[in-house]
Amino acid sequence: MRICRYNENRLGLVENDTVYDVSSVLEQLPTLTWPVAPGDLLIEHLSRLTPAILAAREGAKGIPISDVKLLSPVATPAKIIAAPLNYHAHVDESLADAGIHNGVHVAHYEGFKSPVAKFGVFLKNATGIVGAGEGVQIHFPGRRNDHEVELAVIIGKQCKNVSEADAMSVVAGYSIGLDMTVRGTEDRSYRKSADTYSVLGPYLVTADEIAEPGQLGFSIHVNEEPRQNANTRDLITGIPELIAMASSVYTLYPGDIIMTGTPEGVGTVQAGDIMHASIDQIGKMDVAVRG
Amino acid sequence: MRICRYNENRLGLVENDTVYDVSSVLEQLPTLTWPVAPGDLLIEHLSRLTPAILAAREGAKGIPISDVKLLSPVATPAKIIAAPLNYHAHVDESLADAGIHNGVHVAHYEGFKSPVAKFGVFLKNATGIVGAGEGVQIHFPGRRNDHEVELAVIIGKQCKNVSEADAMSVVAGYSIGLDMTVRGTEDRSYRKSADTYSVLGPYLVTADEIAEPGQLGFSIHVNEEPRQNANTRDLITGIPELIAMASSVYTLYPGDIIMTGTPEGVGTVQAGDIMHASIDQIGKMDVAVRG
Repeated sequence: MRICRYNENRLGLVENDTVYDVSSVLEQLPTLTWPVAPGDLLIEHLSRLTPAILAAREGAKGIPISDVKLLSPVATPAKIIAAPLNYHAHVDESLADAGIHNGVHVAHYEGFKSPVAKFGVFLKNATGIVGAGEGVQIHFPGRRNDHEVELAVIIGKQCKNVSEADAMSVVAGYSIGLDMTVRGTEDRSYRKSADTYSVLGPYLVTADEIAEPGQLGFSIHVNEEPRQNANTRDLITGIPELIAMASSVYTLYPGDIIMTGTPEGVGTVQAGDIMHASIDQIGKMDVAVRG
Repeated sequence: MRICRYNENRLGLVENDTVYDVSSVLEQLPTLTWPVAPGDLLIEHLSRLTPAILAAREGAKGIPISDVKLLSPVATPAKIIAAPLNYHAHVDESLADAGIHNGVHVAHYEGFKSPVAKFGVFLKNATGIVGAGEGVQIHFPGRRNDHEVELAVIIGKQCKNVSEADAMSVVAGYSIGLDMTVRGTEDRSYRKSADTYSVLGPYLVTADEIAEPGQLGFSIHVNEEPRQNANTRDLITGIPELIAMASSVYTLYPGDIIMTGTPEGVGTVQAGDIMHASIDQIGKMDVAVRG
């Protein structure tokens, strides 16, 4: 099942690039009172709502996905967790390019089994998330603002201390993630967290549709130029290990997002550019950059 | 006005270490439906609710604050922003002690006007927040887990690109913050973000009660041992500049927390310790450490 949020918080079921409006099922979500538990209510209830979504699709009129404004399929994640330096070729380019490491974020990890073991995962600002149709607004003009395309894993249930063996059972689905980044000396959680610097889309593909999330080809073009092209089989720290590590530290909530890391080929974008990102078995999205 | 959250989400007005139950005003908060806007609903509506809180206090029975379980006065912050290395004497101790910098987080900031200008602010996990009565659970046994006491600023309204001149107008109030930290090579946003590693309390003091937030003495003892003792007049990057900087990157929401940085004297805690933190004009809180 492919679920999108679009226009003014409509809920859509996506089939063959056609969006069917199933927003009527949102009435089945509970109302909330203070204090609101962390997490996204739709993602929390997505499994329970699935029969109603499929029923609402019957008779719904389809519109081309290119005609809607795509919002983040997770409206309000409680947190966005991301893995740094999780493909060897990106580690190599980071070490080679002072424009990436700035003398502070040097990617050497001797003595550790992986970059993630040395540098941990990091947090991105959850309130800065946008969908493909909202686009990226450059916040640091005159500095190097880079695209980083990656597989995004969306957590489906509240959990803590999940084992690697059980990790995939807490996954609700997958999306394409863009971890937009300004290069500089600041901490990752600052440089990757401006409003619009986390893009999620085009929709959420439920976990049952992706048999091998660790075997997905993916790429990004900027305008007509190929930039990144890789496969999640080359993740240094894989998805189960990332979930186990993150959940050993933080309680995870429905809608929490884990951005699994970007491969080689990161590069600059500027206002006016269009980023075209795709992941096998998920889909593609076009994201505009504005000033 | 001093507002606490306690026991099972009761709302209290605090006067002279006595808590008056004013929970009845919570019925005036709106109910919410998906998608829930970021921010804490109580903080968003606190000004509007003040007359009702004061009315509810009349006739309410008081109980000693020591008899309640204090929760975080902000139930669900959308984000926690924090300043690294924001007192000169803490910069010096960080440079001198490999147990703090671990060869990765070296505090030199030559060529920049301040550590914050070089390293930025960073994010802590908002779902890991607790109140004084909940205590801290050690997540990295065998490693160096440190207390960092600091003044916490609580944002009162949604804002972006706030000027330094206008910054204080978006502040709802102040609390004591503990930025619990495991030392190591990982990014700050990982080492400071485990569940319970952000303590806020004992209550929120509204901004009108603190004429000079940049002139507050504060301290922390662990058991009977004095550890940190400083004054916010020694902040390198002051509160207005922190708000301006953060809001130039992120939209701020009601209940967002800015932890302003810790002074010299950081040190280790272990299960069984009790941390006693206080800030002039705010109050004091005792926070237990457990394994």
